[in-house]
Amino acid sequence: MALVVQKYGGSSVATAGHIKTVARKIVDRVARGDRLAVVVSAMGDTTDDLISLAEQVSSSPSPREMDMLLSTGEQTSAALLAMALHDMEVSALSLNAFQLGIETTGRFRDARIVDLDLSRLRHRLEDVQVVVITGFQGISPDGDVTTLGRGGSDTSAIAVAAKLGVPCEIYSDVAGIYACDPRVVPEAKKLDYVVYDEMLEMAALGAKVLHSRGVEIAKKYEVDLYCGSTFSDEEGTRIVNTLPEWLEQPVVTGIAVDMDQMKVTLEGLPDGVDLLTRLFGCLAADGVNVDMISTVSAGGRTSITFSVVSGHICQVRDSVRESLEGIDGWSLSDDSTVAKVSAVGVGMKTSSGVAARFFSALDGAEVSVLGTTTSEIKISVLVPRDQAGDAAKALVAEFDRREEQA
Amino acid sequence: MALVVQKYGGSSVATAGHIKTVARKIVDRVARGDRLAVVVSAMGDTTDDLISLAEQVSSSPSPREMDMLLSTGEQTSAALLAMALHDMEVSALSLNAFQLGIETTGRFRDARIVDLDLSRLRHRLEDVQVVVITGFQGISPDGDVTTLGRGGSDTSAIAVAAKLGVPCEIYSDVAGIYACDPRVVPEAKKLDYVVYDEMLEMAALGAKVLHSRGVEIAKKYEVDLYCGSTFSDEEGTRIVNTLPEWLEQPVVTGIAVDMDQMKVTLEGLPDGVDLLTRLFGCLAADGVNVDMISTVSAGGRTSITFSVVSGHICQVRDSVRESLEGIDGWSLSDDSTVAKVSAVGVGMKTSSGVAARFFSALDGAEVSVLGTTTSEIKISVLVPRDQAGDAAKALVAEFDRREEQA
Repeated sequence: MALVVQKYGGSSVATAGHIKTVARKIVDRVARGDRLAVVVSAMGDTTDDLISLAEQVSSSPSPREMDMLLSTGEQTSAALLAMALHDMEVSALSLNAFQLGIETTGRFRDARIVDLDLSRLRHRLEDVQVVVITGFQGISPDGDVTTLGRGGSDTSAIAVAAKLGVPCEIYSDVAGIYACDPRVVPEAKKLDYVVYDEMLEMAALGAKVLHSRGVEIAKKYEVDLYCGSTFSDEEGTRIVNTLPEWLEQPVVTGIAVDMDQMKVTLEGLPDGVDLLTRLFGCLAADGVNVDMISTVSAGGRTSITFSVVSGHICQVRDSVRESLEGIDGWSLSDDSTVAKVSAVGVGMKTSSGVAARFFSALDGAEVSVLGTTTSEIKISVLVPRDQAGDAAKALVAEFDRREEQA
Repeated sequence: MALVVQKYGGSSVATAGHIKTVARKIVDRVARGDRLAVVVSAMGDTTDDLISLAEQVSSSPSPREMDMLLSTGEQTSAALLAMALHDMEVSALSLNAFQLGIETTGRFRDARIVDLDLSRLRHRLEDVQVVVITGFQGISPDGDVTTLGRGGSDTSAIAVAAKLGVPCEIYSDVAGIYACDPRVVPEAKKLDYVVYDEMLEMAALGAKVLHSRGVEIAKKYEVDLYCGSTFSDEEGTRIVNTLPEWLEQPVVTGIAVDMDQMKVTLEGLPDGVDLLTRLFGCLAADGVNVDMISTVSAGGRTSITFSVVSGHICQVRDSVRESLEGIDGWSLSDDSTVAKVSAVGVGMKTSSGVAARFFSALDGAEVSVLGTTTSEIKISVLVPRDQAGDAAKALVAEFDRREEQA
């Protein structure tokens, strides 16, 4: 008998009918001799409906009460799934964050899991075949209900699996992780394996199948993760520490596309790190989230290109002007219609010529490169937003040919 | 500064708009310098909606999971009310059964409160003006969520008030307790005061404003209870241990009508208590709920009339035949179209002639009396169901004239 953690997302438990489908999937697994801890999200639109109710009674709902309110969503789906399992003659019971002893920090709406009291879970698993756990929620040191922020149920599931030292299976309406978001590159293939570090870099990949906080926990505790579809038996994607030995590590595993970027370029600045400190300090203080930064220095003058995620261009301009007050001779240009396209792969560490293939592919697709940054396992470029799709397609095609070229 | 417990029922928090109305009522009270522990029910039809969801996933939902499911209803309304109070600049927070430490028995769907951990409530009331408490729910010795059965939120509120030693105000869409159900006798007056024992006898009175389990707790711990309307400032009804000294105790406080009775008469039985034991033992074993019992014995033969609540006449006949097997010479007759009409008043203990006035009023209204039982503070008669309204009207009129006659 093996113990396994499974997680079903909101679209997998959206209706009573969906919940019965999930129950049948669990029943089949139990019939194979496994015991399960199943983490569930709230049903479909429940969370949005509750937020809308909150906004009807308050112009700025208290975060503490919002968490108290939202946590009812998972309790509802957990209880219903346990009932559906009973109806199929599988012994099951639901546990909420109080009952499971999920301790978190006290930051409402975005708490972090601090500890889990596994003795309670193990105790209950002695009596029943399936324990259904409310995802997304925990209890603060003051005994208040907290929620874990976006993707929180993934985090709950992976944390439970990490603490139990067992595998974790994440089910949703997507069949796994793809080499590129299928909405951008429909021909992108589903990946059999992804390494934790790649998954972290590819957070934007694969229609948000998996949240990066959960992956960080999986990496830290080496939890075997699996992402698959609730509604089909198609094989999904395994996220692991290292690939199986028989599998050669590809150079590039996936292509990530982030459409929501804005490019800012400053030219003619005097050299000096203090200026950068002032500049990025000022932007951070104004709540501007800076992503890619490239600097080029020549002849005592520095040019800086950086990209900004979801900021307002007027605010960026104001922040920059404020930070550079008293300095002359510089100019600012901006472009709010750019996208970031990245190739990610731990194989880059040991392969040469990846950058050449990367830029050659973009060149072949006539994509303009507006800025570049690299890490050990990633190359990112800023491109005009309307060329992002072509860029991704070209990169998917280039790096999918790896086997022929190896 | 006084501490007060208030309870708002499901119809009082049915929508976001209703919740804001309740919040304004609380804000006014806080402005007068009071601190409040407010117990809430689930919003309007929430409980029914959740039960319907449960029935969609299971043909006979597990009671444990049903309680887990239903308890989300009160948590939702409690969080929303706390948010609405914040929005009106009153400090408030919601607490569920885990947070408040409401210990109950382990009987799902119908648990009894065993204890409350008031230290947590008092601690929170040091920081905020209003603590909003989820009604209807508790935690079993095993740490499972339980619910308290019909009227459970009244019980929660009264138990909190009892433990704190403070008054309890029950708000609903009814303005108080009436001398008779206004649907039966529209001219029945609202009562200013009712004594606990009367309230217990009058459980069927006043459109189910107050559940008898709560009243039992109120009586035991002498909690000052008040029943009033959420939506008007009209003065409601106080339920107390003894009336204020300046108020003369009326002979009859209220007239209760129970339309759902069935009358069974046995004649020609041999005398003997053992026979009654067999008869009522057999009915109880078959789940028949016997209410009024009258026996008349003469010439060595006994006649028995009893009334049955919500049973099936065939089952009653079978039970009776089974229990009287081997005995000859008796006959059974039954009437399934009867009602019970009762006059209740602790003043009966010290007044004479109440029975005479009672029967004279019925006689004046040409009501047939099919059976009678009395207690220290109640006279009940069985009457043909179609005469129950006339009987109630006549009794309300008769005993409302007490002041002239005193």
